[in-house]
Amino acid sequence: MNYSGLLRAGRQALESQPFSKLLNAKLRVFSPGEVVLEVPITEELMQQHGFVHGGVISYAADNSLTFVGASVLGAKVLTSEYKINYLRPAIGDKLIARSQVVSAGKRQAVCRCDIFVLADQEEKLCATAQGTIVTFVTDDD
Amino acid sequence: MNYSGLLRAGRQALESQPFSKLLNAKLRVFSPGEVVLEVPITEELMQQHGFVHGGVISYAADNSLTFVGASVLGAKVLTSEYKINYLRPAIGDKLIARSQVVSAGKRQAVCRCDIFVLADQEEKLCATAQGTIVTFVTDDD
Amino acid sequence: MNYSGLLRAGRQALESQPFSKLLNAKLRVFSPGEVVLEVPITEELMQQHGFVHGGVISYAADNSLTFVGASVLGAKVLTSEYKINYLRPAIGDKLIARSQVVSAGKRQAVCRCDIFVLADQEEKLCATAQGTIVTFVTDDD
Amino acid sequence: MNYSGLLRAGRQALESQPFSKLLNAKLRVFSPGEVVLEVPITEELMQQHGFVHGGVISYAADNSLTFVGASVLGAKVLTSEYKINYLRPAIGDKLIARSQVVSAGKRQAVCRCDIFVLADQEEKLCATAQGTIVTFVTDDD
Repeated sequence: MNYSGLLRAGRQALESQPFSKLLNAKLRVFSPGEVVLEVPITEELMQQHGFVHGGVISYAADNSLTFVGASVLGAKVLTSEYKINYLRPAIGDKLIARSQVVSAGKRQAVCRCDIFVLADQEEKLCATAQGTIVTFVTDDD
Repeated sequence: MNYSGLLRAGRQALESQPFSKLLNAKLRVFSPGEVVLEVPITEELMQQHGFVHGGVISYAADNSLTFVGASVLGAKVLTSEYKINYLRPAIGDKLIARSQVVSAGKRQAVCRCDIFVLADQEEKLCATAQGTIVTFVTDDD
Repeated sequence: MNYSGLLRAGRQALESQPFSKLLNAKLRVFSPGEVVLEVPITEELMQQHGFVHGGVISYAADNSLTFVGASVLGAKVLTSEYKINYLRPAIGDKLIARSQVVSAGKRQAVCRCDIFVLADQEEKLCATAQGTIVTFVTDDD
Repeated sequence: MNYSGLLRAGRQALESQPFSKLLNAKLRVFSPGEVVLEVPITEELMQQHGFVHGGVISYAADNSLTFVGASVLGAKVLTSEYKINYLRPAIGDKLIARSQVVSAGKRQAVCRCDIFVLADQEEKLCATAQGTIVTFVTDDD
């Protein structure tokens, strides 16, 4: 599959996730070993202090990690585990979750994700995550 | 504050989080060192394979951990970091995130959270998390 | 294998690890889903402030987790990943790393470990860990 | 302090850790935000399959992270928590743990560490870690 075909397939996968649609997440980059996922920040994604809720940041990290794993392992993957460190409160226009593959085999990939918040046209790192994406088999296989 | 007062305060805090309202999360237990947070499972919380999206499970873990930290450290806390292992796909009626404090000082608490899915009136463990909740100071302090 | 046979097999495995011998680690409990590993505290396991070095605590967590994974998955396992929170400085006579299996399938187990330090005949929790143990195949298989 | 002074101070700190001396660890780089720590691989650092024991790799990650935290926060720091993913068995001549600061405030730094094994004059990534280093106060302060 060429790059635009890959990105289109990734966007279809994202579109088929109701929760990603609820959050209006967008896939900006989907190429082998690299993913950029964005979430526009709206009022309903906040916690009580006016910052983006940690759960939204976690969603962005988790999903960006899953997609970057899929970019090298294929579509049938899921996140097995990850850890995230929150670095600063996220206030701004959108979250940008940039993921990379650190190491990949046939059945799993260890990946990292840096989550930025865009505010006043400047990106600030607000969280960083590391996790394991694994393949799974279905009854169809 | 007595127990019912504490629970009421916890519920007000949860109600003041727009993202928790979007997900319709409920606080069932909020006592010193113990929290139970529930998220009813609806169609819009799914990923593409018909399971609850990992981002929702992460939200439940993150928020349950933050609240259990608050139950011993006070209201001005945030989650500094956590890790989560997904154990099985979540299919069912609701998520139940049960958290406990493992160790607490004045400024931080290390806590654990087990996330169950309720299906056919049976709870199954679907994820487990461990993280650090820390106090923060505001300009009012 | 009966319990004493299992414990004996576990101790042989531990004895066959040169690094565990260097640290004089002992297996106290090795039963399906539960492991207790001890490390006597000596001067050479310290860091510069007179506490047990974090690397020793990590070793105890890592190895206790690996063994508890092996107790349900079989001998051919390794630790895929874990996270650890240090809770207090470890000063005392020995480290006691108690592990349990949280969830196990055929190919992996998610496990937890609480690491205590024994001082003045009292155990204090000094770290807690959570990780994934996986099976591996060798050329002999 | 200039660079050579800083490296000398770092090496003195490492020398004052009995466990680091036991493992013969060496500090190759110690500059603000960047640390390289090495551990020569010897027979006694192995596990039973002929690979470097995970506990040694964890030590290298933990200590490299602590030192890189100290490089920006000052000498009175400790590792609060970290997670590590093992990527491949470590076989070779030495471990090289390269750490960087991802984000630092006054009281804590979130850092990453890539651990390589040098074999046949080639470095291979064998583990990757992410953690939090925090300052502490002593009675002298």
